[in-house]
Amino acid sequence: MAAFFITSALALAGSAVAQLEGRGFPDCGNGPLKNNTVCDTTADPLTRATALINAFTLQEKLNNTGSTSPGVPRLGLRAYTWWQEALHGVADSPGVNFSDSGPFRYATSFPQPILMGAAFDDDLIRDVATVISTEARAFNNDDRAGLDFWTPNINPFKDSRWGRGQETPGEDPYHLSSYVAALIEGLQGDRNDKYKRLVATCKHFVAYDLENWNGNYRYQFDAQVNQQDLVEYYMPAFQQCARDSNVGAFMCSYNALNGVPTCADPWLLQTILREKWNWTSEQQWVTSDCDSIQNVYLPHEYGSSREEAVALSLKAGTDIDCGTYYQEHLPGAYEQGLINVTDLDTALIRQYSSLVRLGYFDGDAVPYRSLAWDDVNTPHAQQLAHKAAVEGITLLKNDGLLPLPISNGTSIALIGPWANATEQMLGNYDGIPPYFHSPLYAAQQTGATVNYAAGPGTLDPTTNSWLNVWAAANKSDIIVFAGGIDNSVEAEEMDRVTIAWSAPQLDMIGQLATYGKPVIVLQMGAGQLDSTPLINNANVSALLWGGYPGQDGGVALFDIITGKSAPAGRLPTTQYPARYTSQVPMTDMTLRPNSTTGSPGRTYMWYNEVPVFEFGYGLHYTNFTASIETPSSPSSYSYSNSNSNSASSASYDISTLTTTCTTPYPDLCPFTTFPITITNTGTTESDYVALGFLAGTHGPAPRPNKRLVSYQRLHNLTAGESQTAHLNLTLGSLARVDEMGNKVLYPGEYALLVDTQPLAMVNFTLGGEEKVLDEWPQPPADRVKFPRAKDQYFVGGYGSEQVLE
Amino acid sequence: MAAFFITSALALAGSAVAQLEGRGFPDCGNGPLKNNTVCDTTADPLTRATALINAFTLQEKLNNTGSTSPGVPRLGLRAYTWWQEALHGVADSPGVNFSDSGPFRYATSFPQPILMGAAFDDDLIRDVATVISTEARAFNNDDRAGLDFWTPNINPFKDSRWGRGQETPGEDPYHLSSYVAALIEGLQGDRNDKYKRLVATCKHFVAYDLENWNGNYRYQFDAQVNQQDLVEYYMPAFQQCARDSNVGAFMCSYNALNGVPTCADPWLLQTILREKWNWTSEQQWVTSDCDSIQNVYLPHEYGSSREEAVALSLKAGTDIDCGTYYQEHLPGAYEQGLINVTDLDTALIRQYSSLVRLGYFDGDAVPYRSLAWDDVNTPHAQQLAHKAAVEGITLLKNDGLLPLPISNGTSIALIGPWANATEQMLGNYDGIPPYFHSPLYAAQQTGATVNYAAGPGTLDPTTNSWLNVWAAANKSDIIVFAGGIDNSVEAEEMDRVTIAWSAPQLDMIGQLATYGKPVIVLQMGAGQLDSTPLINNANVSALLWGGYPGQDGGVALFDIITGKSAPAGRLPTTQYPARYTSQVPMTDMTLRPNSTTGSPGRTYMWYNEVPVFEFGYGLHYTNFTASIETPSSPSSYSYSNSNSNSASSASYDISTLTTTCTTPYPDLCPFTTFPITITNTGTTESDYVALGFLAGTHGPAPRPNKRLVSYQRLHNLTAGESQTAHLNLTLGSLARVDEMGNKVLYPGEYALLVDTQPLAMVNFTLGGEEKVLDEWPQPPADRVKFPRAKDQYFVGGYGSEQVLE
Repeated sequence: MAAFFITSALALAGSAVAQLEGRGFPDCGNGPLKNNTVCDTTADPLTRATALINAFTLQEKLNNTGSTSPGVPRLGLRAYTWWQEALHGVADSPGVNFSDSGPFRYATSFPQPILMGAAFDDDLIRDVATVISTEARAFNNDDRAGLDFWTPNINPFKDSRWGRGQETPGEDPYHLSSYVAALIEGLQGDRNDKYKRLVATCKHFVAYDLENWNGNYRYQFDAQVNQQDLVEYYMPAFQQCARDSNVGAFMCSYNALNGVPTCADPWLLQTILREKWNWTSEQQWVTSDCDSIQNVYLPHEYGSSREEAVALSLKAGTDIDCGTYYQEHLPGAYEQGLINVTDLDTALIRQYSSLVRLGYFDGDAVPYRSLAWDDVNTPHAQQLAHKAAVEGITLLKNDGLLPLPISNGTSIALIGPWANATEQMLGNYDGIPPYFHSPLYAAQQTGATVNYAAGPGTLDPTTNSWLNVWAAANKSDIIVFAGGIDNSVEAEEMDRVTIAWSAPQLDMIGQLATYGKPVIVLQMGAGQLDSTPLINNANVSALLWGGYPGQDGGVALFDIITGKSAPAGRLPTTQYPARYTSQVPMTDMTLRPNSTTGSPGRTYMWYNEVPVFEFGYGLHYTNFTASIETPSSPSSYSYSNSNSNSASSASYDISTLTTTCTTPYPDLCPFTTFPITITNTGTTESDYVALGFLAGTHGPAPRPNKRLVSYQRLHNLTAGESQTAHLNLTLGSLARVDEMGNKVLYPGEYALLVDTQPLAMVNFTLGGEEKVLDEWPQPPADRVKFPRAKDQYFVGGYGSEQVLE
Repeated sequence: MAAFFITSALALAGSAVAQLEGRGFPDCGNGPLKNNTVCDTTADPLTRATALINAFTLQEKLNNTGSTSPGVPRLGLRAYTWWQEALHGVADSPGVNFSDSGPFRYATSFPQPILMGAAFDDDLIRDVATVISTEARAFNNDDRAGLDFWTPNINPFKDSRWGRGQETPGEDPYHLSSYVAALIEGLQGDRNDKYKRLVATCKHFVAYDLENWNGNYRYQFDAQVNQQDLVEYYMPAFQQCARDSNVGAFMCSYNALNGVPTCADPWLLQTILREKWNWTSEQQWVTSDCDSIQNVYLPHEYGSSREEAVALSLKAGTDIDCGTYYQEHLPGAYEQGLINVTDLDTALIRQYSSLVRLGYFDGDAVPYRSLAWDDVNTPHAQQLAHKAAVEGITLLKNDGLLPLPISNGTSIALIGPWANATEQMLGNYDGIPPYFHSPLYAAQQTGATVNYAAGPGTLDPTTNSWLNVWAAANKSDIIVFAGGIDNSVEAEEMDRVTIAWSAPQLDMIGQLATYGKPVIVLQMGAGQLDSTPLINNANVSALLWGGYPGQDGGVALFDIITGKSAPAGRLPTTQYPARYTSQVPMTDMTLRPNSTTGSPGRTYMWYNEVPVFEFGYGLHYTNFTASIETPSSPSSYSYSNSNSNSASSASYDISTLTTTCTTPYPDLCPFTTFPITITNTGTTESDYVALGFLAGTHGPAPRPNKRLVSYQRLHNLTAGESQTAHLNLTLGSLARVDEMGNKVLYPGEYALLVDTQPLAMVNFTLGGEEKVLDEWPQPPADRVKFPRAKDQYFVGGYGSEQVLE
């Protein structure tokens, strides 16, 4: 019988491929489903989906467990591809079909999240995500895309070497949470709307931030994370997605967590995700990463057979398999009694109630059905792609050269591997943009004479390729070097091995700096590079970090250079000295410094040495001052403003704070909002990002250096103008996480610092007894970790000896 | 003045590019040089080259120091490109120009050296190299290539992770030396001929075998090697090249050795290479790697300025800079008095006397001038490319399935990422072959029905791509899986991070093994993979290792499978268990096991655990026995043959052995030749490689497990036939290397073992006092190591803390 199931499943799964062209909407008007409750728009999604799945045969259920879902032709249920991508615009992916010509041949391509993260502007992110969901709906209406998208990647960018850090907004868990809340709103729409705009997918759950470091591949890596780091650092953005932003989907990750592959972990997918975080709507589902169910079997070697591996995954709560491993091996698992029909129904009802909620069965009743090609690449979208790049670009060094107006008579040497960047500007998970406005294009638009030379990074690996660089520099007034890294060294399946600038680039910049001409360096790419040599070189006048700036990236960079726009981006990750990579193996998941291992700690919160540039660093073309006004207060408020830019002596009682709040989640209880008056004391109009960091002596040592608890970007402060940023703090902002993963309010001293080198500060104290705000469910003691003795075929690399928790 | 030099040099160097099209021979009949002694064919090369260089101006001398040499148009001396490649056939490289159509559109492409190494057949290597030099001369005569080629790569393949191990014949220094001697004969011709066929280039001198491991790039790596390991392991092949095979050129490497970049190391390039090894002909030169002179400055930070870096390199003995760093910065170095004209003359005279010896100035007097397109891709060359692949392919497992004759009625499922390999078969440093005979092509030639499926490794990363694999397997009689690794994971600038089979491939093979059909696995690529799971799987009947088999690789593989040819290749490297990469960092250059670091030792000589397959392993389709006959003897010979396959009780006196020999190099003194009678006791005609290993208790502990001292491949032993292999041993075969690097003959017990699981053995003893055969010049105590305090921008990776010697 097992052979029968396998053969049949394969045959049907294979036929799904041929049906992909016919993707679209089921016909509830005249099709076979018209009398099925799934077509009853007055019923709730659960009821509708349940009716649909009840009409499936067992074989049809088994067949529809993969990302390429054949549907049920017998019922008029068309094939559906679950795998769409839209990381920074509708992107090439199995479910997305760009046209070769005419309508739908491109979509707006925004900067990579790492650069949008640097904007620290949640409104911007919401606007960008709204454009993406609008364009995705237009593609869907033309039968060119599905309705669920496997974005965002919201794993914290903890280690500069990570090849996929570019997909994330940065290293800080509060920042990620705030960013992702805005993003999900833009992608999915208002949670109370009858129809979701799209389904977003928070990935990769959880503790995934390694591609291939020294013998450790993401497919087999067993991340050892203690509960404190897990709750404090790796989980917050996912809690935001599930508990607070009602995201439609999750993706489990390739790695194992403390001995259990995440896609086969019931503690993670049931106890935490669905129970602890109340992510219990049937419209919500978990997909595997591609092909992480196969990886549960090999190389994780979790489950003694392929059938057991798929059964463990399905029962743990992974509803969709990106791949065919479910379709191939669930029939055998069923045959062996390892799963039952209810297990299949649970997964399928989640899938299809999600589609119901997207209006998949409701035809033109769905308002988004009117979106079309005219709604793609609108002037608004183009402007927003430009704005997002401008807002993220971060000024790291400026000796006064910038802004540098460029007139028609000026000649610019534009040099380096990013000088004529086109696809490079997009980073990964890209679509097809309407245009590539490269730095070279942008420089030429200024009216200047541009002498372009690619320099190192071209196909010729020798210094022969440098000769045209000297020629370009010799005949130019200004030298702009655009380099750094790109997807040739940081990419999916490719972590970096160093965070130093490449020697040829440094040598070339060093030589260019001897020409006696202004030199501007553009440091591109997501992972930071140790720019110490450029800081120390007095002849390098300015350094800008530009990430992956998207379709209009070159224009954005030159708008900053010329002063058409003022820089106000902030580094979303720490720039470490190059030696950092020799101090911490990528496999070390701990955040706190460790004198035994020699780790100096991870992220600006725990790193105990001097960074090259700290998290949040960013210069302006003007100066700002800050003063803290009387905050709106909780009931226990008592506060006195001691001077213009420092406030102190407020004190609060912990039990009062916690008993006066009645939200279901105490960490969301408001604490207070600090109004910060920001004044532009210079002469250049500029945005300003108010970053609120919390520091102070509260809770047990070791204590973080500080931690971001609130931020707000203010726009267009003209010379002399003041605006007020409102930094909201909740009780969760004040809480720390104990070794068990519980969130605890501790009595002690607190200080809110405005900006990295604080422009203002307010001190306050909490008194009374410490109080657990949120209790963390511990992994069960009898949790099964690698039930088979792991073979040695896939051992981890040097320095990666694993100690089970 | 410095500015003048720099500008002028750049202008002329730039103009070299335009002259490249006109490469060819100087006109000694009517050109401006006709009365220069360089055109006097009766003068010796040194005199001729000196006359030429004396005619150069200073500026012209400075301009001709790079690999793209502009020549001297004023003198009718045409531009010359020094950079040609011919690793396994005339290859794409700056100095080689394939035609788009018509003649010279391809050249014979042999297997990668790693597979040719597995043949253990020096005659084969000489033949292959002769074809390469013949084809290269034909290209040269059509003005499509120069006359010097930057091959061979003769660094020992010590670590399976090394991305360029494919370019070498294997891990054993004796094997490499013997191989390279044959290769250089084929490439350069008889050393007494008036005209060299080509100039070969032994690279990379020395201790270069790391691309980018965990923060360590080849460009910056400082290899810490003690003198014992250096002489015993890293140097022998280079000594063979320089001292014994009179190779025309050397290439210094990217790495530093014990604190000094090799291209700037006078101890290495002068004391060892030129003085110790008598490599003193002016026709011999050293080129930098590309662009290792730039790397001397950055990232090595050796030399306080660019001018000092180039001066140190030139004065150390690097005659040609691959790149433009010499051309750019030697003018400044000259201006600052860091080099003088004599330094330039030395380098230039070496270059041009080399060209004189190649007949560059002698027109049609050179016999090779008649070689033409008809001499490329001859039937002999095609057969040799096929033969080289057949001889190298190594049988690792066979349950009796092979040989498997394939008839017209048979159906074969040919599955995996190598099943339809074309370019993959060539590996790196490839040219354009006349054809790609893929495994798929070869399978189809058998007359069988071939069901092909690429499986994992295709663009679709998910198990969706597996579906056609099951379909192919279902309808076939035999399953052949062709996979492993290729240049996507082992390549220049890319070391591997694991030596395990990829999980998707293992999973797929495992599933295929459940079909109840014969399964044959082809393990392709250079670096060994831990094939333990395939050995342990009883349903995998056969395992063949095929390396990179070249243009006819598919046919060679199927000739072995079907029994048209019998396998006799031997593994040229150890196949380690996957855990090995977690036991030894790539940066660890030591060979001996180390209980402190946990290293189990490197290579079959020192590894103290159980390998998956040992160096020299290889199965046959028949059985062989060996017996040792009375050897030819040195004067001190006394020997008695105790039984048919074991000989013992010979004893020799060390002082007699050393005093009766008068060769200039005592390690080359003959010791004895052991005649080994090999008998094919089976029914299948087959080659047999007689490997002679030396073991025994002589010299201080720790002692190597054994070491290869001689080998010979016997051909076409028919059923029952006996042939005699002659295993020659010299005094150097018996010597060990002490901690100072001296070669020493020690009294003690010796055993010569025939084959890895010995078929025969002979014991003998050496008596008397230990005797230093060869004294090693120590690096000077005042050697300058990194005169600048190294910056931290380029620190090495985790676990790579360097301790200077």
